[in-house]
Amino acid sequence: MSRIVYVNGVFVPEHDAKISVFDRGFIFADGIYEVSAVMAGKLLDNAAHLKRLERSLKEIGMKMPMPAEEIVKIQKELIERNGVVEGSVYLQVTRGAADRDFTFPAADTKQTLVLFTQARDITNSPSARAGIRLATVPDIRWARRDIKSVALLAQVLAKQAAAEKGCQEAMMHEPDGTVTEGGSSSIFLVTPNGELVTRPLSNDILPGITRASLKILCDERKIPFIERAFTVNEALAAPEVFITSASGFVTPVVAIDEKMIGGGQPGPVARRLREIYLDEAIKAGV
Amino acid sequence: MSRIVYVNGVFVPEHDAKISVFDRGFIFADGIYEVSAVMAGKLLDNAAHLKRLERSLKEIGMKMPMPAEEIVKIQKELIERNGVVEGSVYLQVTRGAADRDFTFPAADTKQTLVLFTQARDITNSPSARAGIRLATVPDIRWARRDIKSVALLAQVLAKQAAAEKGCQEAMMHEPDGTVTEGGSSSIFLVTPNGELVTRPLSNDILPGITRASLKILCDERKIPFIERAFTVNEALAAPEVFITSASGFVTPVVAIDEKMIGGGQPGPVARRLREIYLDEAIKAGV
Repeated sequence: MSRIVYVNGVFVPEHDAKISVFDRGFIFADGIYEVSAVMAGKLLDNAAHLKRLERSLKEIGMKMPMPAEEIVKIQKELIERNGVVEGSVYLQVTRGAADRDFTFPAADTKQTLVLFTQARDITNSPSARAGIRLATVPDIRWARRDIKSVALLAQVLAKQAAAEKGCQEAMMHEPDGTVTEGGSSSIFLVTPNGELVTRPLSNDILPGITRASLKILCDERKIPFIERAFTVNEALAAPEVFITSASGFVTPVVAIDEKMIGGGQPGPVARRLREIYLDEAIKAGV
Repeated sequence: MSRIVYVNGVFVPEHDAKISVFDRGFIFADGIYEVSAVMAGKLLDNAAHLKRLERSLKEIGMKMPMPAEEIVKIQKELIERNGVVEGSVYLQVTRGAADRDFTFPAADTKQTLVLFTQARDITNSPSARAGIRLATVPDIRWARRDIKSVALLAQVLAKQAAAEKGCQEAMMHEPDGTVTEGGSSSIFLVTPNGELVTRPLSNDILPGITRASLKILCDERKIPFIERAFTVNEALAAPEVFITSASGFVTPVVAIDEKMIGGGQPGPVARRLREIYLDEAIKAGV
């Protein structure tokens, strides 16, 4: 069945959802994106996603294409038109179409705004039930990983390399062995004392929305949430490792490369945090 | 006047030149590009550009969308249909359109191929006559700059930062001060002894086609062509600095940031090399 997709003010069947070949998103990766999860037809953590969108846009000299409330209306209309119960809404803003020139186009160039839905069984995904495997991959990305741009080729290659090893996500790391993040997720380890450890925010990683929500939930529950860099070796030795992402929530890791984590079974901390996150996010969903 | 553009097998007016919003070039910057200069209606150094295209594609797990000879036919048809005497032909190959997922799509996914022309007075450009100004900008790109991918956001930001300082190109440099390259060019300095110095090829820079042609021309003429890293400070102290690029050929640099180079006038070495390059490239043009 064909989806309905939003492209620059109009709702069209997906096979008609097209943009100019001169779009700077296509030519220069000159754009920003966000993905909000949908559960029971509601958007999770959406205000935080739109706030991060605004921040990423600002970092590359762009503005919101319309007020956040207007974007929410489009997101909701897409969810409704496509009958999405579980899945996600993808959103991309680019600097628009103009004759090819690296420098910014004329100030009156209309930004491109595209949104589409992806229906997927995310509560009962195999990844959540059985856990996932990570493959370590050198992090070769640029120095502004805090900007959620569509210049994602490094992540594509990292996740493909992981997939070719039978893994569902990449564990990207610096040359010194410190873990940055997953190809499209934040990575946590759990210490033997039950503390969560994840890399502190900086230009080196994307400020994960699910990571931020989890931090609040942990603080409320007095679960130690420690922000410090850790190495691949520390993760390999940890009793539990998990990842967070908008559409994966909290997903247990059962192996890193050839090494089993937590006896190859999803750990209790990740399972509990997943439940807590889902309960709270659905309650707050819009 | 509307150009004729090539999109996936068809020649269409530019306002009809569209690709799917699901194209991986748009969503993931999962594609490669090349730009060949056109002079007197002929393609310059085109075989080398198509060879580099094939190499870049291979590095990200893609193949040529069709044999090079077939691409040349499309390039020539576009030049003819658009009556381009001077300018360039742009070419982009992406991994095609598929529902959004970082890992590579099904093997039978059709690659996207887009080509368009840009007419421009390149022999008598103001840049060539008066020289250009460079602005130093930290190089924040990823670790595989040898791949000519469309993940160009860092270059867009670098060239925009340069433009905002009244400069025509960025001089990108590492934290230690060594120059990598321009936002879309190779950078050379000329020593007091008349030797050319430019950074050696590695994953740190794009292997410039004009740079490679110039090397051959210099070798033939016994002009010393030295491949070693140099710093911004060395460039500031050099009697001459110039850049090379496919559509700019050899362009003299008359200032770096606030500092004049060569008394603020295009230098004799750059002027001579530009003439040599143009003579030879036009002779060899196809």
